[in-house]
Amino acid sequence: MHRLGDLAARVGGRVLGDASRRIGGIATLEDAGPSDLAFLTNPKYRKAAGRTLAGAVLVGPGVEIAGKDLLEAPEPYLALAELLDFLHPAPPRTPGVSPLADVDGGARLGAEVSIAPFAVVGAGASVGDRATVGAGSVVGEGAEIGEDTVLHARVVLYPRTRVGARCILHAGVVLGGDGFGFASSKGRHRKVPQLGRVVVEDDVEIGAQSAVDRGTLGDTVIGRGTKIDDLVMVAHGVRVGPDCLLVAQSGIAGTSRLGRGVVLAGQAGVAGHLGLGDGAVVAAKSAVFDDVAEGSFVAGIPAVDHRAWKKAQAALRRLPDLRAEVRALRLRVEKLEREREG
Amino acid sequence: MHRLGDLAARVGGRVLGDASRRIGGIATLEDAGPSDLAFLTNPKYRKAAGRTLAGAVLVGPGVEIAGKDLLEAPEPYLALAELLDFLHPAPPRTPGVSPLADVDGGARLGAEVSIAPFAVVGAGASVGDRATVGAGSVVGEGAEIGEDTVLHARVVLYPRTRVGARCILHAGVVLGGDGFGFASSKGRHRKVPQLGRVVVEDDVEIGAQSAVDRGTLGDTVIGRGTKIDDLVMVAHGVRVGPDCLLVAQSGIAGTSRLGRGVVLAGQAGVAGHLGLGDGAVVAAKSAVFDDVAEGSFVAGIPAVDHRAWKKAQAALRRLPDLRAEVRALRLRVEKLEREREG
Amino acid sequence: MHRLGDLAARVGGRVLGDASRRIGGIATLEDAGPSDLAFLTNPKYRKAAGRTLAGAVLVGPGVEIAGKDLLEAPEPYLALAELLDFLHPAPPRTPGVSPLADVDGGARLGAEVSIAPFAVVGAGASVGDRATVGAGSVVGEGAEIGEDTVLHARVVLYPRTRVGARCILHAGVVLGGDGFGFASSKGRHRKVPQLGRVVVEDDVEIGAQSAVDRGTLGDTVIGRGTKIDDLVMVAHGVRVGPDCLLVAQSGIAGTSRLGRGVVLAGQAGVAGHLGLGDGAVVAAKSAVFDDVAEGSFVAGIPAVDHRAWKKAQAALRRLPDLRAEVRALRLRVEKLEREREG
Repeated sequence: MHRLGDLAARVGGRVLGDASRRIGGIATLEDAGPSDLAFLTNPKYRKAAGRTLAGAVLVGPGVEIAGKDLLEAPEPYLALAELLDFLHPAPPRTPGVSPLADVDGGARLGAEVSIAPFAVVGAGASVGDRATVGAGSVVGEGAEIGEDTVLHARVVLYPRTRVGARCILHAGVVLGGDGFGFASSKGRHRKVPQLGRVVVEDDVEIGAQSAVDRGTLGDTVIGRGTKIDDLVMVAHGVRVGPDCLLVAQSGIAGTSRLGRGVVLAGQAGVAGHLGLGDGAVVAAKSAVFDDVAEGSFVAGIPAVDHRAWKKAQAALRRLPDLRAEVRALRLRVEKLEREREG
Repeated sequence: MHRLGDLAARVGGRVLGDASRRIGGIATLEDAGPSDLAFLTNPKYRKAAGRTLAGAVLVGPGVEIAGKDLLEAPEPYLALAELLDFLHPAPPRTPGVSPLADVDGGARLGAEVSIAPFAVVGAGASVGDRATVGAGSVVGEGAEIGEDTVLHARVVLYPRTRVGARCILHAGVVLGGDGFGFASSKGRHRKVPQLGRVVVEDDVEIGAQSAVDRGTLGDTVIGRGTKIDDLVMVAHGVRVGPDCLLVAQSGIAGTSRLGRGVVLAGQAGVAGHLGLGDGAVVAAKSAVFDDVAEGSFVAGIPAVDHRAWKKAQAALRRLPDLRAEVRALRLRVEKLEREREG
Repeated sequence: MHRLGDLAARVGGRVLGDASRRIGGIATLEDAGPSDLAFLTNPKYRKAAGRTLAGAVLVGPGVEIAGKDLLEAPEPYLALAELLDFLHPAPPRTPGVSPLADVDGGARLGAEVSIAPFAVVGAGASVGDRATVGAGSVVGEGAEIGEDTVLHARVVLYPRTRVGARCILHAGVVLGGDGFGFASSKGRHRKVPQLGRVVVEDDVEIGAQSAVDRGTLGDTVIGRGTKIDDLVMVAHGVRVGPDCLLVAQSGIAGTSRLGRGVVLAGQAGVAGHLGLGDGAVVAAKSAVFDDVAEGSFVAGIPAVDHRAWKKAQAALRRLPDLRAEVRALRLRVEKLEREREG
């Protein structure tokens, strides 16, 4: 149990209420009890906050909840992350190479690695210190995994794939499959050999079932600190800048380049051979068919400036009314014309 | 071989024609022969029904096919399901724990379970009576599988995932990966620990390669009787009500709530923190950005009432004509104005 | 090292410049050095071609790059494929059945097959000559794999699936899962047994994580020479004609038929029970809700003729202006009407 005041100090926040209150864990507004800290980081859940049984609530600046002790933090979601790590630390790793794994004699294993049953580590592959290879994962020949990186169950790294340090690859991720490159001639499609690699830099997380294809000749690169959600597809030769967010089921076609901090919301798509500048944001379900300037927020199919898209969509909803109005106007003009003649 | 009349009785239907006709199996209109029952449940295939060599055809009320014996059932697709189970029963299971599986000594196995080669069952996990764990599947520590549930090949349950009874999880399904939760500050993204679980209730089916993420703190819940197709993504903290249908490649963002019997058609998406009422239907390729009322049928990006969407789309197709008409009107008004002045 | 002239002869091209130049390999415009052949197959990269250090550049007819030796080929992308195969041949296969694989005694293995660790080959399955079953792949009972076909890691073939010769199935592919067939009655969904197969003809490639479901009774068929990208979903009973291209994250709903050479661009979708004629092309992110005629190019949601879609989208962007214009016109008409009366 920790004093609320101590938790506040840990995240650079302050207590509004009783700083001596004892907190043992973190829970949702609905589930929290008197020794729990709950959190309100989305104003939609304001109402639930009023009913919570939580001992205290983590909030952002300026939020008040009558009768509740509050931990006010300047960046409450960031504070939540830090307090979760502190109050609910991950279970300790258990290093060791399972006798049921198949590790090639020519593979290099760092200190304290963990290799689970039915994992395969190929010739010339290297697994960094304290890295984890989950059950049934396949680390191809010559592939490299940086220190403290975690491959959950059933991840596949094709040969020569490189994954940096402190990465997390969730179950089912496939890195390094062939790009979709075919030379079509007379209606038949001839495979263009795919010889490049996938290079994942440090501190990248990739969600379940996502796929990143190797480049045709150069590399497909996922930049440092980028986070990728589930079922995302990154095609051959793409370069994703550092600190990007690719939300679930989004996709990027071949050879496109994303700058720093680009966000693709859920189910968004980017066509091939394009450039998206630093900080560009693509709205959910949108499709980018042209380059996007730095800092832009685009939406729609094809994606255009977000405000223009909103305005056009609003106008579209009123389009049947506009048609009716034009029809009425035409009748009035016809009447005027008849009167003119008459 | 069974009498057509007996099959009709079994599904609460009646025979139009020869009830003594002998039927051995079920086949498509194209493939059926004289001892087969074919079926016509979609009027699009009416023409093919006229040419079929089937001994008899299963139809709904009021359908006639000249010269054919018919089994008319009030709900013909339901009758098809029942007759397929009766005439083409699934092959019997072969219980047993493969010596090539890795089952932790601390796991609880029910009676007559089947554990295939290279499956992993972790410490504290439990596998219900007559449940099946397919080849290469990974059942994490403390995960629970209900009785008669089937995990096909290469399914991954993260630790503490709970799957109810009589569920079917197809190859490649991943339940319990971390939700996509990051606290962004100064352009960097800090992982928010994901501590909740995935809870799948009874009688749920989930298609190949689909992914359901664990909640941040609470659970992600798939309600009883819900059916999920392939490559579907359900994010952290989502609650999917009972008896929903999530068609292929659809996705639901974090913390949204689906009521009873909600349908997401193929490639549809639902943004985060929303509520969809009982019986709501989202058309294919649509994106829901706002709450949807009980019983609504919505379509489009953003999704609106389905009829309004259809009307707006029809108007959109005629929009170039409307522009031309407005231009013509303007010329006529200008002419009237000139004449007025003249 | 090869003479540039010899490489040109190999692909039916000609040298513009020094045919005796020595070439050792192929690289991108950015990475190439003096002994490399680079290639310019997309005019977008013209500028980079001017700066390349490559010894020579592969181009199409009519392309000039000042000061560079050129290999001009009539179909340069096809030439690239051929030269990559010649200059960068794939590493030789190493046949053999891993002692860590689980091959049923009743399976038929051809000559020189390669079966990797933790692969499972079921009873009655057959693996053709020189075929490869990757690590952790599961070949169900009675499934067939043709000669020279490659299953990368963790591919799942459900029982009785048939895959032809010279196919490539990338990591995570699942063929033969149950179709999404449910008979809904009184709000509950009863499973319709799925008894058909998946049949993949010769020379098909399928990308990472894609899923093809078995037919309800008939087969789901992927025609000869068709190429499927990552995370694509093909539903039960679909027939995909020969030589089609299904780009990443596209999907086809149940029982639809695609003719020869149909292209679905990225994230496109096709609803159920439709027909797409030979050579039909569906633009990225489009949704097909009606039959598509042979040779058509369609776009949009719902998909319509591509030019009509473009025109409508352009008009949509100017729709707010049109509304303003109609408002102005109405005021002018009102003024005329008032003057008429006055």
